[in-house]
Amino acid sequence: MPSKVSVSTLRDPGLAPSGHQKIDWVKAHMPILNQLERELSAHRPLAGQRVAMSIHLEAKTAYMALVFAAAGAEVFLTGSNPLSTQDDVAAAAAERGVTVHAWHGATPEEYTAHLTRTLEAARPTLLLDDGGDLTHLLHTGRADLAANLIGGSEETSTGVQRLRAMEAEGVLRFPMVAVNNARMKHLFDNRYGTGQSTLESVMRNTNLSIAGKRVVVAGYGWCGKGVAMRAKGLGARVIVCEVDPVLANEALMDGFEVMPMARAAALGDIFITVTGCEKVIRREHFEVMRDGAILANAGHFDVEIWKPDLEAFGGQPVRVRPHVDAYTAPDGRRLYLIGEGRLANLAAGDGHPAEVMDLSFGVQLLTHLWLVENRGRLENRVIEVPPEIDTRVAETRLRALGVEIDRLTPEQERYIRSWQV
Amino acid sequence: MPSKVSVSTLRDPGLAPSGHQKIDWVKAHMPILNQLERELSAHRPLAGQRVAMSIHLEAKTAYMALVFAAAGAEVFLTGSNPLSTQDDVAAAAAERGVTVHAWHGATPEEYTAHLTRTLEAARPTLLLDDGGDLTHLLHTGRADLAANLIGGSEETSTGVQRLRAMEAEGVLRFPMVAVNNARMKHLFDNRYGTGQSTLESVMRNTNLSIAGKRVVVAGYGWCGKGVAMRAKGLGARVIVCEVDPVLANEALMDGFEVMPMARAAALGDIFITVTGCEKVIRREHFEVMRDGAILANAGHFDVEIWKPDLEAFGGQPVRVRPHVDAYTAPDGRRLYLIGEGRLANLAAGDGHPAEVMDLSFGVQLLTHLWLVENRGRLENRVIEVPPEIDTRVAETRLRALGVEIDRLTPEQERYIRSWQV
Amino acid sequence: MPSKVSVSTLRDPGLAPSGHQKIDWVKAHMPILNQLERELSAHRPLAGQRVAMSIHLEAKTAYMALVFAAAGAEVFLTGSNPLSTQDDVAAAAAERGVTVHAWHGATPEEYTAHLTRTLEAARPTLLLDDGGDLTHLLHTGRADLAANLIGGSEETSTGVQRLRAMEAEGVLRFPMVAVNNARMKHLFDNRYGTGQSTLESVMRNTNLSIAGKRVVVAGYGWCGKGVAMRAKGLGARVIVCEVDPVLANEALMDGFEVMPMARAAALGDIFITVTGCEKVIRREHFEVMRDGAILANAGHFDVEIWKPDLEAFGGQPVRVRPHVDAYTAPDGRRLYLIGEGRLANLAAGDGHPAEVMDLSFGVQLLTHLWLVENRGRLENRVIEVPPEIDTRVAETRLRALGVEIDRLTPEQERYIRSWQV
Amino acid sequence: MPSKVSVSTLRDPGLAPSGHQKIDWVKAHMPILNQLERELSAHRPLAGQRVAMSIHLEAKTAYMALVFAAAGAEVFLTGSNPLSTQDDVAAAAAERGVTVHAWHGATPEEYTAHLTRTLEAARPTLLLDDGGDLTHLLHTGRADLAANLIGGSEETSTGVQRLRAMEAEGVLRFPMVAVNNARMKHLFDNRYGTGQSTLESVMRNTNLSIAGKRVVVAGYGWCGKGVAMRAKGLGARVIVCEVDPVLANEALMDGFEVMPMARAAALGDIFITVTGCEKVIRREHFEVMRDGAILANAGHFDVEIWKPDLEAFGGQPVRVRPHVDAYTAPDGRRLYLIGEGRLANLAAGDGHPAEVMDLSFGVQLLTHLWLVENRGRLENRVIEVPPEIDTRVAETRLRALGVEIDRLTPEQERYIRSWQV
Repeated sequence: MPSKVSVSTLRDPGLAPSGHQKIDWVKAHMPILNQLERELSAHRPLAGQRVAMSIHLEAKTAYMALVFAAAGAEVFLTGSNPLSTQDDVAAAAAERGVTVHAWHGATPEEYTAHLTRTLEAARPTLLLDDGGDLTHLLHTGRADLAANLIGGSEETSTGVQRLRAMEAEGVLRFPMVAVNNARMKHLFDNRYGTGQSTLESVMRNTNLSIAGKRVVVAGYGWCGKGVAMRAKGLGARVIVCEVDPVLANEALMDGFEVMPMARAAALGDIFITVTGCEKVIRREHFEVMRDGAILANAGHFDVEIWKPDLEAFGGQPVRVRPHVDAYTAPDGRRLYLIGEGRLANLAAGDGHPAEVMDLSFGVQLLTHLWLVENRGRLENRVIEVPPEIDTRVAETRLRALGVEIDRLTPEQERYIRSWQV
Repeated sequence: MPSKVSVSTLRDPGLAPSGHQKIDWVKAHMPILNQLERELSAHRPLAGQRVAMSIHLEAKTAYMALVFAAAGAEVFLTGSNPLSTQDDVAAAAAERGVTVHAWHGATPEEYTAHLTRTLEAARPTLLLDDGGDLTHLLHTGRADLAANLIGGSEETSTGVQRLRAMEAEGVLRFPMVAVNNARMKHLFDNRYGTGQSTLESVMRNTNLSIAGKRVVVAGYGWCGKGVAMRAKGLGARVIVCEVDPVLANEALMDGFEVMPMARAAALGDIFITVTGCEKVIRREHFEVMRDGAILANAGHFDVEIWKPDLEAFGGQPVRVRPHVDAYTAPDGRRLYLIGEGRLANLAAGDGHPAEVMDLSFGVQLLTHLWLVENRGRLENRVIEVPPEIDTRVAETRLRALGVEIDRLTPEQERYIRSWQV
Repeated sequence: MPSKVSVSTLRDPGLAPSGHQKIDWVKAHMPILNQLERELSAHRPLAGQRVAMSIHLEAKTAYMALVFAAAGAEVFLTGSNPLSTQDDVAAAAAERGVTVHAWHGATPEEYTAHLTRTLEAARPTLLLDDGGDLTHLLHTGRADLAANLIGGSEETSTGVQRLRAMEAEGVLRFPMVAVNNARMKHLFDNRYGTGQSTLESVMRNTNLSIAGKRVVVAGYGWCGKGVAMRAKGLGARVIVCEVDPVLANEALMDGFEVMPMARAAALGDIFITVTGCEKVIRREHFEVMRDGAILANAGHFDVEIWKPDLEAFGGQPVRVRPHVDAYTAPDGRRLYLIGEGRLANLAAGDGHPAEVMDLSFGVQLLTHLWLVENRGRLENRVIEVPPEIDTRVAETRLRALGVEIDRLTPEQERYIRSWQV
Repeated sequence: MPSKVSVSTLRDPGLAPSGHQKIDWVKAHMPILNQLERELSAHRPLAGQRVAMSIHLEAKTAYMALVFAAAGAEVFLTGSNPLSTQDDVAAAAAERGVTVHAWHGATPEEYTAHLTRTLEAARPTLLLDDGGDLTHLLHTGRADLAANLIGGSEETSTGVQRLRAMEAEGVLRFPMVAVNNARMKHLFDNRYGTGQSTLESVMRNTNLSIAGKRVVVAGYGWCGKGVAMRAKGLGARVIVCEVDPVLANEALMDGFEVMPMARAAALGDIFITVTGCEKVIRREHFEVMRDGAILANAGHFDVEIWKPDLEAFGGQPVRVRPHVDAYTAPDGRRLYLIGEGRLANLAAGDGHPAEVMDLSFGVQLLTHLWLVENRGRLENRVIEVPPEIDTRVAETRLRALGVEIDRLTPEQERYIRSWQV
């Protein structure tokens, strides 16, 4: 157990029991982290490391933090979004020895203060970031706190884009591994995680049927593929809006209608944005929508469904159900927005399924072990996850499920090599 | 608005605001009832009728009751299951002029008292039953209260089975229409309603991935077909257990594995029962299950997953999440039961989607109009819903969705008739 | 082996080797008939019976005829459609002891002569009809030949409709069992059989991609459900046209677009009719179709895609591939018709998969055994297949596949009975 | 029209009419090539170029060759596999001005002679290869014929692997573009092309039901994903065998069973190999298969289902249907091999759908234009297809289908750039 050198910043330590319950539940369903916890607690390869983490602070991430601790690290945890932080989980994590600076609904000032306090307390040797705010702080105001850094990892595609920009400008100060790009991360988390959790959020928050509906999915990247696939699996007719013509062709071959948002807007019953871009649904689209249309965002920021235009169209929102706001146009049509246009699965749901995050966090943990093993040998660049980490996570998952697969015979290996040389 | 001749029995009238919000939400998504409300409030064809209703008392049924009232009837409403009654909705319905006798968590004595009080207050001319308890009371202790009855309707297949038994014994005292058997009811409610809401309940209560799991569905009737279809659509491998060999063949052709529960028990990650039978999953099955298996019931009663055996296997349950209880075997394996083995979508969810219930309740309303039109001309039997009611509900739904369909040309009609004669 | 009392009418007995190969292939994939052949050849319960059969004369039906023979019957076989008769199979069946009167491409006069000759040769005690032509002949010109009839069976829904008409007029002369209505027939043959074989016919005859196409399915009965399901499974966007509003709602909930043919005609790439009605696609529809549209019929008669209008629109057809004719409008648009608008899976394919027909023909054989067992006890009406025949076919199929299912425990049986009484 | 400087080597020029029909059919369904033909025939940018092509010589490739000719090139065409060459198409292509050296069933000596003659006649400036045999010849015996080469392209992943080997050894003599790696090629051709055409081949050659079967797919790359997806869409239960643990996890999340071939062999009804490896199904697997199992290969070479072992198990094959051979074990079990274990969709079918090849061949044509535009500026390496070619093919396809998509607004472009820098 790491020494508690710093005091946590919590909303209410008394919330810990509910947080423990949540952590125990996800722990029972994250076999890869379980396995790593068993192995790493034996020889504690992260002993001496101080890890600063900024991430959506809920049960699954908290359990990951605890496995980092079990591996010997001192862990300093803060949230990556003031609205996704769960105060009971924060309290429970603190009680289990992690230093936490975060609370739900932090103001922008408080949010920055929590990040700063985390870095000050940690003076980290390792960094785990989600979206890039912690990394950004280490490149702007508080570069001094990066002195001990071996390197870090970034969880999201948005954060990786920011890193690439810094790398291109030659200002990146330490090696950052693009965990998002690992196959065991983006092929699973972005697709199966976002797909299920977004549709589930729509269902639980509206109690409406997906079957029989037209669901408009804006964006056909991995996240959009997941959302479209699940909407179809639940009985919807799916319309895909996509600006990349190659992806648009793929959507067609997968059996979806493809059209511009200007036309889809008039046809859809449910709209889900997952593009990474802003103003994907805007005034011109709201104008033609059907009464009762449901709007949900599954992209990183709450800019895809453009709320200023929504208010211009339908005035101030009225909360008609938990997490659902109605905007009413002068002609009486109502549009319903889920979770204020933020990530519907996190702002108005429980986030991705535990087993899916287990994959991503297995990659995170092995990546940090690899960073430590390769300290001093890495350039200050954006680095891809080594393929053997993907393989190891994948094999651990199969073993946890009791799934066996074939191995190539020596003869087959020779055959393949004969082609490759 | 009917006169409020009797006082309602409520948990707390102060809960009405939340109930109004819920009712208004579903009202905005039940276009068939909207349409009937508009039409029927103009000429009030149920004026003078007194309707006793026993049904799962939540927002959708409350709105149906209000449409009965708008059509001129005096409505007396009670719950059909003490655990599905929502006190805020009950309070709101009462505030809008329905006489309500029900509260959540009624004891068996209170439950019977609520039914009795409803009948006494109503001295009904029309009966709307769900499961058959109200009908049963009118055939046993309180036959006197059936004196004014024109007839009634039954919502569920379980209730219809009970009616058939009474009919077979020649004791049925009044005409009862088997609303469950209408095509616009059982083809939609049982399949698409149960399918979506049961899987949604599993997801929201566990935060686990359906994709990658083995889901065992016990029963391949209309409900089971819906559950299996949605589990597949969410990425599961589905195993069907079924005692009817014809349905078992159908499941195979639909792409599912079929096997006895004794073998499926050792393979499944999630089990969903929807058979109408008891002890479908029992001691011998629990014994061989994998650690972490999830158990949910979507059948009418909480007897399909046999809880006495579950306790014998895993001791007293421990609540590990809201609506989720863990049973832990001596060897450490944990089985998780959702919603105490009751209907998972109602006991641990919001029930069927609003639009699906809109179909069933459209049938209910038109059936009661038909009963009044045909008063005195009906035998004391179980009566099927006239096909024109199915057609009218179906057409109203299509119109609400803006969907047009072809009509046969006169020439085509002649062609078809030429074959039929 | 039955005695060959009559000489067969064949195109060319020398074609038998190819026919034997075809029959042997399907025999290896029809385990229910295999099982019945083994059982029935032992005690020959049809000894003394003379069976007249009119059916699509290809390998699967020929094998059924041989199992009737193995059961002791003398079998007289003719085709139910001059274009589906395969001369090599006819020759092989004759060589194996069945009396055959049929050839491919028979003129209407020849066709009637073949039916008549079959009845004259057989003076049947049992009748197996497909479509009703043989039955019709026994009720019009040649009623004399029905003198020995115990009863018969009808394979198709079209034939059953004709029987119902005769029954309604009180003119039906012998008991006829509606094999089409058996669950193990219409739930499988009409849905999975028509679904796969129709799409396969479109693919093999056009070498075009189904994925990415809009497939318009006219009719959403069991056959239409099968076609729509398979088109979706192959990656198409599916539009359903349907005149029954209940079925139209079902199509919507299954995730399909629903609209009138007048609008679908302008959108579709591939059109498949399966309604049982005439003139489903006609001049007004051809006028608005896209260049290159593919037209295929999966309904019983070649009247659904109305060829007189197609010629009025696009002139005389030009054969552009085997089984594909192009119609070219004055503006240059080409429409392609598969198999001359006849059943695409039979006229331009190999018909239903063998295992699916195995189910239907298992019902046929058991139905005829039941007719013999109940001779003299049946009314001259349309009779439904006894449920135990469905059960037996279903169980035999499961056994052949090595699939086990649960049996109700005595306690469960008591539980169910307690509800039903 | 290019001058016919050399005489073609054909089986029978008289077969041309049937070949013309086939070419005209596919031409009517390849809108991207149509569009390029229109554009390129106007300004003939390939005038002066001499293109040597080795490819599966059937209607779609022949039409591509004709578009190269319309663009001004002189085209010299040979087959890439003696069994896929269609003599009627070869004759038709020759009649339309392409120099052809190929016939069906060429012996190895004839095959090499055809390749050599093609190169000698062409003295090519451009090379289009499928599998790498032509490229290989230019690096071994006949390096002299590469003197004029600007560069070439390779269609298949197998061929690209061979090129990579040559590149690694530093022996590649000219620039070769890896057309296989273009997104508009491998995402479509490998997945949707192989998926549909392989299943169609199984259906047409066996007349068996896919629904209700267990289909074992060996390999879960893009081709395997396509085969598994289509088998599922046709109603099969699908088992995936895969040696890469990441892909194995993906198969699980897509709803498939995953296991080693040793276990799948005992369960499967239909086996489809698509791994690129050899001996994927071998003696130990045949030993445990069920009677009647169907074996088909969709990988490049006929080594995946190991025929020496199949003969050791079941003796000499007996042809039981066109393209289907039975192997019978001493215990009577029969295994059926489609198309002699060669690519089932080409050896026993019509290959990929025309619209799918239209995408790949659009990439080919634009790649060759790009090679000419960049002559002298390219290294002798394996070169990836420029992304703008993917985009152009994708946009052309969308336009041909009448599908519009959104464009980013200038404001959105700024937003995205703001993230990327």
